[in-house]
Amino acid sequence: MQFEKYHGLGNDFIIFNYKDLMANNIKEENFPDLAVKVCDRHTGIGADGMMVLVEKEDRCQMIFINSDGSIVSMCGNGIRCFSNYIYNNKILDGTTYKVETLAGLLSLDISPDEKFNVKVDMGKPLLDPVSIPMSTSKEKFINEEIVVDGKVYKVSALLMGVPHAVIFVDNLENIDLVEVGKTIENHPLFPQKTNVNFVQILDVDEILVDTWERGAGHTLACGTGSCASVVMGELLGYLSSKVIVHLTLGDLIIEVKDEVYMTGPSEFIAKGEYKYK
Amino acid sequence: MQFEKYHGLGNDFIIFNYKDLMANNIKEENFPDLAVKVCDRHTGIGADGMMVLVEKEDRCQMIFINSDGSIVSMCGNGIRCFSNYIYNNKILDGTTYKVETLAGLLSLDISPDEKFNVKVDMGKPLLDPVSIPMSTSKEKFINEEIVVDGKVYKVSALLMGVPHAVIFVDNLENIDLVEVGKTIENHPLFPQKTNVNFVQILDVDEILVDTWERGAGHTLACGTGSCASVVMGELLGYLSSKVIVHLTLGDLIIEVKDEVYMTGPSEFIAKGEYKYK
Repeated sequence: MQFEKYHGLGNDFIIFNYKDLMANNIKEENFPDLAVKVCDRHTGIGADGMMVLVEKEDRCQMIFINSDGSIVSMCGNGIRCFSNYIYNNKILDGTTYKVETLAGLLSLDISPDEKFNVKVDMGKPLLDPVSIPMSTSKEKFINEEIVVDGKVYKVSALLMGVPHAVIFVDNLENIDLVEVGKTIENHPLFPQKTNVNFVQILDVDEILVDTWERGAGHTLACGTGSCASVVMGELLGYLSSKVIVHLTLGDLIIEVKDEVYMTGPSEFIAKGEYKYK
Repeated sequence: MQFEKYHGLGNDFIIFNYKDLMANNIKEENFPDLAVKVCDRHTGIGADGMMVLVEKEDRCQMIFINSDGSIVSMCGNGIRCFSNYIYNNKILDGTTYKVETLAGLLSLDISPDEKFNVKVDMGKPLLDPVSIPMSTSKEKFINEEIVVDGKVYKVSALLMGVPHAVIFVDNLENIDLVEVGKTIENHPLFPQKTNVNFVQILDVDEILVDTWERGAGHTLACGTGSCASVVMGELLGYLSSKVIVHLTLGDLIIEVKDEVYMTGPSEFIAKGEYKYK
């Protein structure tokens, strides 16, 4: 079957077209197995996740599956790669696309000749614990203390497509990301687990973000986590409404208006034929 | 440019044809950079190493470059994938191929329909310290003691295409592979460093091998290391001359005659077009 591989800031994905999978007799129930196999970095092509594009009349649907076979509602770096795929394969006309995800209908703008080539309307963040979801009777969960290994962390939570915890710290280098990330990811407060973002503020419009991703661990860049961090920083008065986020392999620009806009790069790596067994 | 990806027991490789690289204006001096980029697991296709196939009259030449850009003379899992590539692309006639490597001219037999589809004549092992190379005045370096972190390891060394240290242990699970592997890899006895194999004997014809690879660290399987382990085990009277080697993702059959023969699997994963920037 035909695949394409892309990355957005080092977060890498294999993309298939639903039509082509069906033609190869791969059904939706096989998608998790296909994702595990194609994402395996030694016996497959290798990627953080797999996306399947379903063509619809005036839009596309994105089915996203992690390398562990679990279904994910939305992935910020993934969706930029997804729009690049739509553009490269001329699946929709023009440069503004509507994409259905499990986190809602998203709108994407592509500027093929620019480095920051995709702008995504990421929708509205949700702060109520039922939506996140969180097991708490509080109305919002903002700057609440969680103790890990005897140390107190001030945690704020929101749904930005997927659940996110945000923790502002003085210096990212002093954080044990794996230990603290894992503990908060699996904390009983989060019945469906959570992503965990550590944020170091450089200026009101410039931050560093390091993310522990639910189900994926420490990744090079998390798009929804960058959005969640800026949303929370703006809400708390730490940040302005347009912020540049520095990640390991590059930057994202996050803008908080009525909705949240993420602008960043996505790059084509390879395409061809994958042998699924 | 056109690529193919294969793996042999989880040791994975990108293969290019020299002709196609030249047609794309990629010169040999660019190969290390190309290897680093294409082998990057997030921003490239991802692999342990890259091979370039040079077509010659009645044979092929293999140029092998590690994911860190360093040139390697020979790779046991790689050469099985390389012969699979020759077969799939019908570059040579028949099922017996001659392949030039920096470790000499090798002979390969492919049985396309079998699981253990490639048999490789790996040539003769060399025990003299000048060939390995080793900084020692001894004639051979066999079961000599090296102390790491206060513990004594009995180390035997040989050249099996590349330098190998072999250590027989009671139980692989009790070995700190990273710590001991790294220390011996960089030991002053080995001026060009060495691969380090830990071997647990299950029976005279059955062993487990875990390898710390020079320049690559802990890998899932090392073909030349499996050969080196059986050669040394047979020489010391621990093993018979035909041994099955269990590795993380499968087995190799190693036979020691005048020369050393390795039989094992190699699998095609994907092929297509890679965008080199």
